[in-house]
Amino acid sequence: MVHTPLDELQQALPECVSRAPDDLARYSRDTGPQLQTVLPSAVIHARTVEDVQAVMQWATRHRVPVVSRGAGSGLSGGAHATEGCVILSLELMNTILGINPDDETAVVEPGVINADLNTAAAQHGLMYAPDPASYRWSTIGGNVATNAGGLRCAKYGVTRDSVLALKVVLADGTLISTGHSTFKGVAGYDLTALMTGSEGTLGIVVQVTVRLRYLPQDVHTLAAFFDDFPRAAAGVLAIGRARVQPSILELLDGRTLEALDGVHGSDLRQRGGSLLLVRTDGYGAAAEAEAIRTVLVGLGADVTREGSDEADRLVDLRRHSRGDDVDDLFRVGEDVAVPKSRLVDYVEALEAMAERHSVHLKIVAHAGDGNLHPTFWVARSEGRRAQDRLNEALDESVRLALDFGGTITGEHGVGQYKLRWLAWEQSPAVLELQVRIKEVFDPLGILNPGKAIVA
Amino acid sequence: MVHTPLDELQQALPECVSRAPDDLARYSRDTGPQLQTVLPSAVIHARTVEDVQAVMQWATRHRVPVVSRGAGSGLSGGAHATEGCVILSLELMNTILGINPDDETAVVEPGVINADLNTAAAQHGLMYAPDPASYRWSTIGGNVATNAGGLRCAKYGVTRDSVLALKVVLADGTLISTGHSTFKGVAGYDLTALMTGSEGTLGIVVQVTVRLRYLPQDVHTLAAFFDDFPRAAAGVLAIGRARVQPSILELLDGRTLEALDGVHGSDLRQRGGSLLLVRTDGYGAAAEAEAIRTVLVGLGADVTREGSDEADRLVDLRRHSRGDDVDDLFRVGEDVAVPKSRLVDYVEALEAMAERHSVHLKIVAHAGDGNLHPTFWVARSEGRRAQDRLNEALDESVRLALDFGGTITGEHGVGQYKLRWLAWEQSPAVLELQVRIKEVFDPLGILNPGKAIVA
Ligand SMILES: Cc1cc2nc3c(=O)[nH]c(=O)nc-3n(C[C@H](O)[C@H](O)[C@H](O)COP(=O)(O)OP(=O)(O)OC[C@H]3O[C@@H](n4cnc5c(N)ncnc54)[C@H](O)[C@@H]3O)c2cc1C
Ligand SMILES: Cc1cc2nc3c(=O)[nH]c(=O)nc-3n(C[C@H](O)[C@H](O)[C@H](O)COP(=O)(O)OP(=O)(O)OC[C@H]3O[C@@H](n4cnc5c(N)ncnc54)[C@H](O)[C@@H]3O)c2cc1C
Repeated sequence: MVHTPLDELQQALPECVSRAPDDLARYSRDTGPQLQTVLPSAVIHARTVEDVQAVMQWATRHRVPVVSRGAGSGLSGGAHATEGCVILSLELMNTILGINPDDETAVVEPGVINADLNTAAAQHGLMYAPDPASYRWSTIGGNVATNAGGLRCAKYGVTRDSVLALKVVLADGTLISTGHSTFKGVAGYDLTALMTGSEGTLGIVVQVTVRLRYLPQDVHTLAAFFDDFPRAAAGVLAIGRARVQPSILELLDGRTLEALDGVHGSDLRQRGGSLLLVRTDGYGAAAEAEAIRTVLVGLGADVTREGSDEADRLVDLRRHSRGDDVDDLFRVGEDVAVPKSRLVDYVEALEAMAERHSVHLKIVAHAGDGNLHPTFWVARSEGRRAQDRLNEALDESVRLALDFGGTITGEHGVGQYKLRWLAWEQSPAVLELQVRIKEVFDPLGILNPGKAIVA
Repeated sequence: MVHTPLDELQQALPECVSRAPDDLARYSRDTGPQLQTVLPSAVIHARTVEDVQAVMQWATRHRVPVVSRGAGSGLSGGAHATEGCVILSLELMNTILGINPDDETAVVEPGVINADLNTAAAQHGLMYAPDPASYRWSTIGGNVATNAGGLRCAKYGVTRDSVLALKVVLADGTLISTGHSTFKGVAGYDLTALMTGSEGTLGIVVQVTVRLRYLPQDVHTLAAFFDDFPRAAAGVLAIGRARVQPSILELLDGRTLEALDGVHGSDLRQRGGSLLLVRTDGYGAAAEAEAIRTVLVGLGADVTREGSDEADRLVDLRRHSRGDDVDDLFRVGEDVAVPKSRLVDYVEALEAMAERHSVHLKIVAHAGDGNLHPTFWVARSEGRRAQDRLNEALDESVRLALDFGGTITGEHGVGQYKLRWLAWEQSPAVLELQVRIKEVFDPLGILNPGKAIVA
């Protein structure tokens, strides 16, 4: 006998639905700060497109909110559970459906891990370029839903630039295809780009066709240590002025170097007050690295061309520099972006501001894109009052980024946590258009409500 | 005394509105085939954003259809006049508002000519990468509205990949800003991408912020002559298999070479039955060109490394290979794209099909993107019956492209002429979603009605 909507779902998809308390807790949140703890009423582990369609038909029938989830590595609370929701996990849909070496494309299920796709592509001399620092565990579906950036984006662009086509299950269970399997295509509106970065609020991504790029036949990595952060940031501009395009251009401040040394036993901080990590790739890699070295030495940097093991280790350390500790209400990592020319000024303003609020600050940046990840934190022992200071500092850091012509989020998405800043960036007319676009796709408002856009 | 809506507009914007018969005729169409000749009731030459807003407020009040227009170089009839419309020309809004050499961005009015932006950017060692063969006269606004491709897109991506932010006037005259001035940004839905390629059906683009790329410090061009087209197409695949990324990779068949020789007095057809024109650029250009040369010589091509004057001339000839004659109902240029691996098969199928229908065929392709421009024609003297044959061949060429996993339009847009094929590519659910998105932006249906999507 069927009692509740959930019983009905469990009967229809017995092997997919879990109500085990452990599961509810584990799947209740992503890696972003949580304003409030909410448990989902169930976790659904979809294994097929039909599962996802069945879930959405059921959710439409009973008006149940559905929060999609990849690996839960999101940093904005986009996958946090909300009142009355079920979590729809795509992680078991993790088959690479095909790699087409001559077409230079791959077709994958949404739960495929970014690194797994790269391992498979490498067999064909190819790579999937967008590489969020979480690439070892985040999913392609999550990357698409957040339009993830990453390190190599300096040269190869963000997720959107590599996504050709999608299969998407709409709120009512309808399956649609967007885009094209070809590199180019302009038939109709660009629904693929509209879906990309929509954080599960317009549909569930159940299949992704991506463009692959050529694995570079040569790679050079430079580690440039500067006395301080402003000088290193000036180095970013100087590389740009030399019109040389690195594949990776990452900036780490002294406190980040200290934190890395603390966790990994390295001696980075001893080598300088700020690190600019530069990688060039392709046929011109050696010449590009040399051109960049000359520029940075001219600015007084101590530049070592790292051997390939040491280079990989440094890039790897950088990838961990955001993951060394989990964010919570005492420690929040930010994700603003500013025009490149404003990097130095923005960082100076940020440091002054953090000092004024007595808030700790460390910064890493995808500097080639002007995308900064300042982390602000306060002592847990100080309690509530310190949280208020932290929040003021956060607000001010975001306001400053906007004043400098920037954006509130370069790559992590608005999710739940950044909603309070969205109206600072977008006009009422734009906010309203977004609500009405959502209504077209999700008239009942059951797809990840309260995320990504201001309702 | 105001008599008609048009009188009212003329009174409000006396210097913008023209009803001169010459103007009406000249602005009544773009470069695409015309199914029917329709004259607009007026041509409006906007000079400011406020002009555009005034026009749209007026059009909303009186429910007058508005067809936006850049240079009118479109090939799909997107800018053709339709019943009762006014033409809104943006060509006088042609100021480059700013180039930010450190940010590597430019802000332009929509009427700025693609080549003019490139000339200005070159002063700073920068370029605006998307270069439709019409770059000497097409406008950035038109490029955005069609999501134009071009030659360099093989390496640098299409217009969408270079557009960061837009100002757009909506149907009711509201001015909105979309996107961000930074390279990356994921706040809200990607309205910038949604506008890009929407062919004037969602709003009027009145300002564009683009990302600029570095002018390559070295450029190499190869001309590879093959005995026939299938062999040259195989060369495209072979370059891909060698995992070398050219900046330009254009494929011309024998009949295109003949046509070029006829117009320009060159001797291309004598040199081979098909030409693969390859350009590499950047620090690795020489090594990349050499790697490609080796591959193509291995396939039996006669490869000459062209000196830079001759190379420029060849690339220039290619740019003209679509413009040597105007399309009409006896001669139609197509724009399908197929996955790269299917290039050879598709071309073979196309040639067999053209022969079966007794229709002439020549082909050029942005081969690096699998984007083909076959031109089909019949003798004018044969009249109506030949047109039917031509149309059957066109239909079949498009159907074939779809069967091969391709798209009906790689870069020119659906406009008016390709509407008959859109439902072959898109499902009813997608067609319907597009209609409803249009309704969000344009509830009265006054923005370029009857174009781009199936109503
Ligand atoms: C240490 C660390 C480093 C990171 N580095 C980067 C970085 O360099 N660049 C970067 O951009 N991000 C980075 N992130 C953030 C995060 O990894 C990315 O946002 C990633 O794309 C999320 O993928 P996921 O599979 O974990 O998705 P989740 O966190 O599970 O979900 C993210 C959002 O997408 C939605 N979603 C997930 N799957 C689907 C689907 N199939 N259909 C529809 N909606 C879906 C969810 O509802 C949620 O809104 C980092 C995170 C960590 C913890
Ligand atoms: C010889 C030749 C070669 C070509 N080569 C290429 C090529 O390589 N790649 C390619 O992609 N195309 C090519 N084209 C097609 C054409 O040049 C492009 O589509 C170009 O982007 C159109 O720009 P335009 O300024 O002429 O726009 P128009 O033709 O005036 O308009 C094109 C469409 O955009 C809309 N529109 C124009 N301006 C605006 C605006 N400001 N706001 C909103 N909507 C607007 C119009 O309503 C219409 O639907 C070629 C054309 C020719 C004649």
